[in-house]
Amino acid sequence: MILIVTPNPAVDVTYRVARQHVGTTQRVLDVARRPGGKGLNVGRVLDAVGIPSRAVLPLGAAPGRWIADGLDALGLTHVDIAVTGETRTTVTVVDDVAHPTMFGEPGPEVTTDEWVAVTDVIGQQLDGDVEFLVVSGSLPHRADPGVVADWVAAARMRGVPSLVDCPGGALLAAADAGATICKPNRDELLEATGADDERSGALQLLDRGAGAVVVSRGADGLAAHTRTGVTEVRAVPGVSGNPTGAGDAATAGLLAALLRGSSDGPTSPTTTTTAPSTPRVDHAALRSAAAFGAAAVLRPVAGEVDVDAVRRFLADDDGARSDARPSDPTWSHA
Amino acid sequence: MILIVTPNPAVDVTYRVARQHVGTTQRVLDVARRPGGKGLNVGRVLDAVGIPSRAVLPLGAAPGRWIADGLDALGLTHVDIAVTGETRTTVTVVDDVAHPTMFGEPGPEVTTDEWVAVTDVIGQQLDGDVEFLVVSGSLPHRADPGVVADWVAAARMRGVPSLVDCPGGALLAAADAGATICKPNRDELLEATGADDERSGALQLLDRGAGAVVVSRGADGLAAHTRTGVTEVRAVPGVSGNPTGAGDAATAGLLAALLRGSSDGPTSPTTTTTAPSTPRVDHAALRSAAAFGAAAVLRPVAGEVDVDAVRRFLADDDGARSDARPSDPTWSHA
Repeated sequence: MILIVTPNPAVDVTYRVARQHVGTTQRVLDVARRPGGKGLNVGRVLDAVGIPSRAVLPLGAAPGRWIADGLDALGLTHVDIAVTGETRTTVTVVDDVAHPTMFGEPGPEVTTDEWVAVTDVIGQQLDGDVEFLVVSGSLPHRADPGVVADWVAAARMRGVPSLVDCPGGALLAAADAGATICKPNRDELLEATGADDERSGALQLLDRGAGAVVVSRGADGLAAHTRTGVTEVRAVPGVSGNPTGAGDAATAGLLAALLRGSSDGPTSPTTTTTAPSTPRVDHAALRSAAAFGAAAVLRPVAGEVDVDAVRRFLADDDGARSDARPSDPTWSHA
Repeated sequence: MILIVTPNPAVDVTYRVARQHVGTTQRVLDVARRPGGKGLNVGRVLDAVGIPSRAVLPLGAAPGRWIADGLDALGLTHVDIAVTGETRTTVTVVDDVAHPTMFGEPGPEVTTDEWVAVTDVIGQQLDGDVEFLVVSGSLPHRADPGVVADWVAAARMRGVPSLVDCPGGALLAAADAGATICKPNRDELLEATGADDERSGALQLLDRGAGAVVVSRGADGLAAHTRTGVTEVRAVPGVSGNPTGAGDAATAGLLAALLRGSSDGPTSPTTTTTAPSTPRVDHAALRSAAAFGAAAVLRPVAGEVDVDAVRRFLADDDGARSDARPSDPTWSHA
């Protein structure tokens, strides 16, 4: 089971209007509401390919209850930590002409005691059958990025590998705590590290303690950085649609490949004192990430993938390469 | 007690951003959420001047619960009718440069059975100590405007006067049912009736059965139309600010004056078969409406008035007119 922490979940609202225009009253033609937040997107994509996960979420007030109900309706397992502040909402306005406009609330003030409760829940869950800890998405307004380091350390202590896809200080804190994989997009990497180029930024995170740094480059594919070098894949060509959530689907694709790899290969010795062995982010894992990311672009909403397209992209990719092997990922049987 | 029906209440959300711009991701700097809907604005303004009211609201799902909690927090009395559909949200985006942009959801589908439940509740309430029935605001998407006629008829049957401030077909239905006062703004009047000018539109409503038609003209003041003529007042001069909710405050001001008038004058005989006598919408009543409307413009949010400003505007107005009388409205003592 994959344990997925979404530190700042959201009610994601999409408004369709005839034509966006500042300064007017616009009738909303269509409303879509869904439980949102990057970690929840990762969990929904994993669920679509039969990989079990469990969401850990601080949830507050009416929007928090709405998210809990929504996850129940989707059949996703979640462990909620009640917080006093109100869970945020994001509003995306779309029409058929302009780019979407997104309004993002900062999220609630989560108290120190509430963060302690979140960390306690993560620890309890990690004492179970967790194969990977994922922390994905921003922290709420004014939260201490150090909480992410606590969660990574809790996983490390138990020999559970971790993947962190958070912006800013939380990414640096995760690297400091020895996250197995840091997975920012390129802009987030440069912003968090202040580096001028991707390799320098990745080396900073590796020097801080990250096991590997996987960078999403959008239409330019993905790269996995280790101290010894960079492994790169291109994006699936000729795919257009909605890029929102593509990075989260790529995270799910990466995890799907790494879980398959770890079940094929020798298992790492689990002790409570050594760090987990770094799962190998090889070409196959990155290609899985790219295939999932592209399959998400084909769907109009974040948190979904076209599963047939994932299979097709992986098969095309295998056929085109010398290192091809039969496209039969375990997730298609799970 | 004034019974106020808000057929399509809303969670009114205001987002402050640095600078509105279509097609970008905008960080929300400040979020304000309040129970909204024109009827609730009227009730809040009445409450501010000590006039008791009771809100009747169809409420659905998480946003509905949020409104109920919000009204409790404001100390406003409300009777909720549970509906399956989700109560709507309106989002208003503001910055310091452009005009606000408002996104209005259409509101839930309310079933026929649910409308029957609303009508039953209104009937039960009208059997109590109701001095005025107010119906204010739009109906939800695809609702039958005829429900408003049922409510007006229920009031009429019990000798309770009614004021209806609804757009479109609901305004016509209210006039057909003999609403004591129809109170549209000028644009709504012309749109609902298809008339080319205000007087023709008002005469249409009077011919249908309305007792009087009070038209808000924004910065141009207010007018009360009866079959015999028009009474007009100018807006309070030199007031600028937020016009949202000014029409609802004007409704509250009109009601405050009419209640004062009815307690001064002879009470109409209450029978179950004759229509209520039309409260006289005279200059003083319109001036009260104008003063409340202007005092609402001074407040940054709908549903509030600057109570000192109401007193000042009424005093100024009294001083400037030959028909002046001491400014000592009953509401200031209630």
